[in-house]
Amino acid sequence: MVVFENFLENTGSKSTPHPSANALDNLYDLIVKEKVADHSGYYRLPFEDKGPKDCQEYIQTHKELLSTLKNLIVIGVGGSSLGTKAIDTMLCHLPHRKNIALKFLEHTDPIEITKALQGVEVENSLFLVISKSGTTIETSSLAKYVLSHYNLLSHKSHLAIITDEGSPLQKWAMENEVACIDIAKNVGGRFSVLSSVGLLPLMILGYDIPSLLEGAKKFMMSFLYRKEDHILRKAIFLAKSRDRYPINVLFSYSSSFKDFNAWYVQLWAESLGKIDTYGKKVGLTPIALIGSIDQHSFLQLITQGVMDKTITFLNINRRNYSEPKIPDFKMQYLESTDFVNNTSFAKLLSYQQIATMQTIQNEGIPTDEIKVDMLCEESVGTLIFYFELLTSCVGKILDINTYDQPGVEFGKIRLREMF
Amino acid sequence: MVVFENFLENTGSKSTPHPSANALDNLYDLIVKEKVADHSGYYRLPFEDKGPKDCQEYIQTHKELLSTLKNLIVIGVGGSSLGTKAIDTMLCHLPHRKNIALKFLEHTDPIEITKALQGVEVENSLFLVISKSGTTIETSSLAKYVLSHYNLLSHKSHLAIITDEGSPLQKWAMENEVACIDIAKNVGGRFSVLSSVGLLPLMILGYDIPSLLEGAKKFMMSFLYRKEDHILRKAIFLAKSRDRYPINVLFSYSSSFKDFNAWYVQLWAESLGKIDTYGKKVGLTPIALIGSIDQHSFLQLITQGVMDKTITFLNINRRNYSEPKIPDFKMQYLESTDFVNNTSFAKLLSYQQIATMQTIQNEGIPTDEIKVDMLCEESVGTLIFYFELLTSCVGKILDINTYDQPGVEFGKIRLREMF
Repeated sequence: MVVFENFLENTGSKSTPHPSANALDNLYDLIVKEKVADHSGYYRLPFEDKGPKDCQEYIQTHKELLSTLKNLIVIGVGGSSLGTKAIDTMLCHLPHRKNIALKFLEHTDPIEITKALQGVEVENSLFLVISKSGTTIETSSLAKYVLSHYNLLSHKSHLAIITDEGSPLQKWAMENEVACIDIAKNVGGRFSVLSSVGLLPLMILGYDIPSLLEGAKKFMMSFLYRKEDHILRKAIFLAKSRDRYPINVLFSYSSSFKDFNAWYVQLWAESLGKIDTYGKKVGLTPIALIGSIDQHSFLQLITQGVMDKTITFLNINRRNYSEPKIPDFKMQYLESTDFVNNTSFAKLLSYQQIATMQTIQNEGIPTDEIKVDMLCEESVGTLIFYFELLTSCVGKILDINTYDQPGVEFGKIRLREMF
Repeated sequence: MVVFENFLENTGSKSTPHPSANALDNLYDLIVKEKVADHSGYYRLPFEDKGPKDCQEYIQTHKELLSTLKNLIVIGVGGSSLGTKAIDTMLCHLPHRKNIALKFLEHTDPIEITKALQGVEVENSLFLVISKSGTTIETSSLAKYVLSHYNLLSHKSHLAIITDEGSPLQKWAMENEVACIDIAKNVGGRFSVLSSVGLLPLMILGYDIPSLLEGAKKFMMSFLYRKEDHILRKAIFLAKSRDRYPINVLFSYSSSFKDFNAWYVQLWAESLGKIDTYGKKVGLTPIALIGSIDQHSFLQLITQGVMDKTITFLNINRRNYSEPKIPDFKMQYLESTDFVNNTSFAKLLSYQQIATMQTIQNEGIPTDEIKVDMLCEESVGTLIFYFELLTSCVGKILDINTYDQPGVEFGKIRLREMF
């Protein structure tokens, strides 16, 4: 279960007027229209069978290899890696997560390549190349590297491709008889984690895919039945106050959210930093922090720096973490720290989050809070879909194309010219 | 060698006037005055013998333990951990770096505590508690935990303290006959990496401390001889354009800078997010990225989102990394990616950085560039001191106290009330 609490409009004397019922209805209608028009295919993903079925089939066919798998190496960057990484880091404590090392080849940094492949032997490894077209320069270069280094065309069962139907990479895979799974149509990288892009690696790792999709599906249905209007209100607040609050901080109180933070940053930055239909550069800047550790890095700026940020707190209920505890260990001269003795670190962390949130609210800074009751497939599915839907809603009000990324094309052309 | 190139003022048609010689002189004078007044002790650190001597002495006295050391566990948060972590991540490729695992206990997250201490036995470990006062709640709680869990008062040689002279923690250490090293006077956490806070752990790991300090010292001397005026110009640009460019992005093109990025974020955010002498909330917001990977996450927002960011590129010269190479492996249908075949990944990464910088400059966004010839102790000393000095310069123009952090106190009081 995930609970959403929205205090954004309650910012003391400078309270913002709540959006009218009419504004909510309009935004809702625009999103429904966008969904029906299939402007982005991600809306369909929780309801589609093809993705999970394709993955299931792959797993059936490669049972033998997968039963002895030690390393799963994902070769892909941005939307092809961030979602899978985020979900695995949130869920890797689950007992059914298989003992397979998940590694990523996504960086052209020579140091990283060598480190990622240390100790990797082809015999117990699967290399998964993920790219919509296959022509992303990092992905194609790293794919060529492992193809050559491990002579993968002689070990074809250790290689699989996830790519768009009809892409050059799919053609290559078919020509070379390499296993290849389609990405659902019309789904951009940063919205693709619930397609085969995320589902295949997560299924191989042993996660419960139906529950992950169910969490997303239930949330979408609930949104369609107008039971999640907090999302509309939040989107309107963020988009309409964008000049006053151009920066949105996600303050996540668990290191389990480390990679989810990175997924959020890409989703928010790449979707919302755009030229709008009037030719104006618009956008909201994401920043992602981990509590309590970043209270010692960023909190001062939030409380006393320019008031240009909204803060979203993301928490887990930690009632099951009674251990480790802070022992009842008294240190002379340090008696002022004894008030936490005999409590669990989990309780301390929860209280730190509340104290920090109150400090920030006290300054009149807009906050909201997302509480995850338990990190499991279903709650993670909900969380993912919540942020995707929120991004779509904000994009609608900003009057931009949320799903493209034309601003990175110039660099690609320039790079080619340089060579 | 570190080279600084400042293109900040060259932003096409909207060029900013260069600061007058008078403005440079004034800022220079203010910094010299601040240094002389000892308003913050960090200016002294590259010139002081006491810190390195104290650490050397500790190492001499504990030779035997250190010769068999496997784990160095730093218990400290924010300024007590970020600097050491940053330097170790930048330099851990050096051949004289000893084979000792450096671990950090800095997070109250139950999952992290258990993970950090996995496989740690007291016999071949040193626990280093670092805190100015000792009363930081994370540090004291984690210190109590290891004191009790490993019964450290019966293994005193496996425990050492770094703290302010006269602090409650120093008193406790003396009372309990635990080794204790002072932090140089009047040095705040985020400016303390060149004091015993960073020097002791880095010395234990085998790094060349004199060269590290020499890099900082040379840079400071050069600044005092007015040979580094680029720093004054940059500070004036950033501080004076703060309404137009409230966000400063550090775009580091190597994963070696991952933890340096986090150090920079704390330094910038906590130093510059302040209430100025007129009672106004001011500040500049830091964001730190890793290239090329974050080109697939954040670049779109930089190029086509609101023009509210300056971008500093941080690079290493990679002429020595001819391996690994992208093999001359041709993939049918993917011929468009063949232009990088037969070049090193290092060259690809360098070219990606240049192409990205040109893309950003092309949009009229202010950029500057820092090129590190080789990651070694001396260049890292320069880099650290450069950013500290830049922070001081910006703080001067913003008319704030760069060295305190009053905005986090309310949360500490609230936390205590909650218990």
